[in-house]
Amino acid sequence: MSEFAAVDVIRAKRDGHALSDAQIDWVVDAYTKGVVADEQMSALAMAILLRGMTPAEIARWTAAMIASGERLDLSSVTRPTADKHSTGGVGDKITLPLTPLVAACGVAVPQLSGRGLGHTGGTLDKLESISGWRAKLSNDEFKSQLQEIGAVICAAGEGLAPADRKLYALRDVTGTVEAIPLIASSIMSKKIAEGTGALVLDVKVGSGAFMKDLTTARELASTMVRLGRDSGVNTVALLTDMSTPLGLAVGNANEVAESVEVLAGGGPADVVELTLALAREMLAAAGVDADPEKVLASGRAMDTWRAMISAQGGDPDATLPTARETEVLRATSDGVVSGVDAYGIGISAWRLGAGRARKEDPVSFGAGIQLKVKPGDFVRTGDVLLELRADDPSRIPAARDEAAAAVTIGPERPTPVKLVLDRIA
Amino acid sequence: MSEFAAVDVIRAKRDGHALSDAQIDWVVDAYTKGVVADEQMSALAMAILLRGMTPAEIARWTAAMIASGERLDLSSVTRPTADKHSTGGVGDKITLPLTPLVAACGVAVPQLSGRGLGHTGGTLDKLESISGWRAKLSNDEFKSQLQEIGAVICAAGEGLAPADRKLYALRDVTGTVEAIPLIASSIMSKKIAEGTGALVLDVKVGSGAFMKDLTTARELASTMVRLGRDSGVNTVALLTDMSTPLGLAVGNANEVAESVEVLAGGGPADVVELTLALAREMLAAAGVDADPEKVLASGRAMDTWRAMISAQGGDPDATLPTARETEVLRATSDGVVSGVDAYGIGISAWRLGAGRARKEDPVSFGAGIQLKVKPGDFVRTGDVLLELRADDPSRIPAARDEAAAAVTIGPERPTPVKLVLDRIA
Repeated sequence: MSEFAAVDVIRAKRDGHALSDAQIDWVVDAYTKGVVADEQMSALAMAILLRGMTPAEIARWTAAMIASGERLDLSSVTRPTADKHSTGGVGDKITLPLTPLVAACGVAVPQLSGRGLGHTGGTLDKLESISGWRAKLSNDEFKSQLQEIGAVICAAGEGLAPADRKLYALRDVTGTVEAIPLIASSIMSKKIAEGTGALVLDVKVGSGAFMKDLTTARELASTMVRLGRDSGVNTVALLTDMSTPLGLAVGNANEVAESVEVLAGGGPADVVELTLALAREMLAAAGVDADPEKVLASGRAMDTWRAMISAQGGDPDATLPTARETEVLRATSDGVVSGVDAYGIGISAWRLGAGRARKEDPVSFGAGIQLKVKPGDFVRTGDVLLELRADDPSRIPAARDEAAAAVTIGPERPTPVKLVLDRIA
Repeated sequence: MSEFAAVDVIRAKRDGHALSDAQIDWVVDAYTKGVVADEQMSALAMAILLRGMTPAEIARWTAAMIASGERLDLSSVTRPTADKHSTGGVGDKITLPLTPLVAACGVAVPQLSGRGLGHTGGTLDKLESISGWRAKLSNDEFKSQLQEIGAVICAAGEGLAPADRKLYALRDVTGTVEAIPLIASSIMSKKIAEGTGALVLDVKVGSGAFMKDLTTARELASTMVRLGRDSGVNTVALLTDMSTPLGLAVGNANEVAESVEVLAGGGPADVVELTLALAREMLAAAGVDADPEKVLASGRAMDTWRAMISAQGGDPDATLPTARETEVLRATSDGVVSGVDAYGIGISAWRLGAGRARKEDPVSFGAGIQLKVKPGDFVRTGDVLLELRADDPSRIPAARDEAAAAVTIGPERPTPVKLVLDRIA
């Protein structure tokens, strides 16, 4: 078919019509093959962003993206499978303690993760701060580790939803990331193609999240839950707060360290609470009756963590990298910490080198922010609020102002924010 | 500046904001230079189409497109200058008799024209059916012919509004042609850059036109008139009917023949009426007091036509090409022709080979449709309604149904449609 068909598809969406199944199948396939050009797909993506899609269109679009590549068959795995996906937040290292914890409870967790782009970190970037650990596994390695250890965190293979890979890179440079139909189909096509039996979505809401308000977050969550269910994946979503960073560590190596603290039975209360909440949902969705709190306390989750890291070449006892430069920010008045803004802390950590501006940039493992206070803590003038860490000292000045503005001190204790805001099933 | 700036510009328009002067200047310049990629500009074009632009944004965008190339200086031409632009219609050959007519009245007409794409023909394609005639002139040839003969119809040089050339090709394949801000700035950037002192716009309305309804056509016309005035070009627009083809000839060579009939004092009444109406507007806009009807009757317009064609290497006495295959369509009932649909006739002529599907396709000079009836004519069963002409006989079947459906025969005379529907100054 010629490019005139592409123009017809673009025009139909531009004028507010629903695309037919045949149009969707064709355009996704033709784009993957390069028959539909980047400039045509970006115009279509903008039309989708501004005109929306019906649930039927989103389902078909997702199916077409899955069909663009291979779909993993996890039937050789004897345990039930459950995965988790977070839409991304600041200090969100939950995948790290959660995956071995759920595996230790008897459910296999096939966690295909990504790298960070923008102010929210990527799980693979964090794990790569562990000496020797490798993100890339073959499909056979992936399945055998899943069967033997029950926990895998690795990079999604090239063969999984290649249409999404291509489209995601395009959306990133064309201002078309923020389209719910495209976000939902991007996430769900990869999760459905990876072959998991159950899926728990952690849809973040707040300044540090992609979704700033509860209404949009609910719409995204419902769309994804429906897509999962319609494809035979038992899917549940939690809407969780991302107005404040999760835990005290924002970066790469320091987030790994905090995750290990949680697995050792310690760690910040919010990280522990969310890890357990998500673990319970995953276990329930997979139909396994176990108490993750007891399993965590038993040390078995830590054993699984060590086995999982070792299986991928990592040394669980290796010293984690630290940044060359450190600077502390101190309170300039007495009072109570009324807020620690997730977005400001995220951008600041990104500027320090914890994240990347372009796909091909490296991240600095030791860079990031270590919070010394959380909302509600009392502070006195001169107390340390946070520590900025960078390998390159020239990165500190730009990060400092952003971080300082993110921490607000007031006269009274703020109203505590609930961590889990809603559940959509 | 990096591509992140492009994303910011796209997002601003996507979210319904007006772009700043600096954003517009940067994005048009960066696109022309290839710094902003095609896929970014097409996403922006779609956002402009769906979100619109303020008059100030359109004016700045137009100025940026003019600034992307050279602006002709016609100060060496001693006569006042006036040009005409039609938004495109079926059987619209008015430029051909109009240019020499207005020149014969004492106004220099610097007509930079285009080729046809889609179902409306291009002036250059029509003139190229004259043996030897060449569309391409250097700037010096253009100016000296304008001074000596007063009439030039030629291709716009590569140096004129290169941003528009690139953007137009992109819009054509990305479903973003139908955006009033982009249509208006595309037309006006070229006309302002060509250096004309006055401009008359023929904004077509109806099935065979780009603008199907009077409201949208008025909006486009007002936008363009404002842009012209603000740039010192005395601009007026006529809104004219395009529900029925202009004249009896739709194609290339047959439209030239019909134009020559008009210059010889004959030709279809509607073609003569519109030619005179536009000539009066151009003369008034240029401040020249002359009666085009008398000049047409005097034969001086025909003399100018011959001089204009000869100056560009054409033989005004050459036999025009004819198509190899001809087929007639006949009335299947007695009655009155109640309508001849411009769109149906345009598509049919395009299918016969008079137009092109892709920019690089050639046109067939002899192909097209010759109407034998106009709305209001009485016909009897078996009377010839129209003649289909093609070089390639395999093109006739697909064109036949479209053409047959375009001519409707009813029991009563239709209400005559006014040719000039409105005037915007």
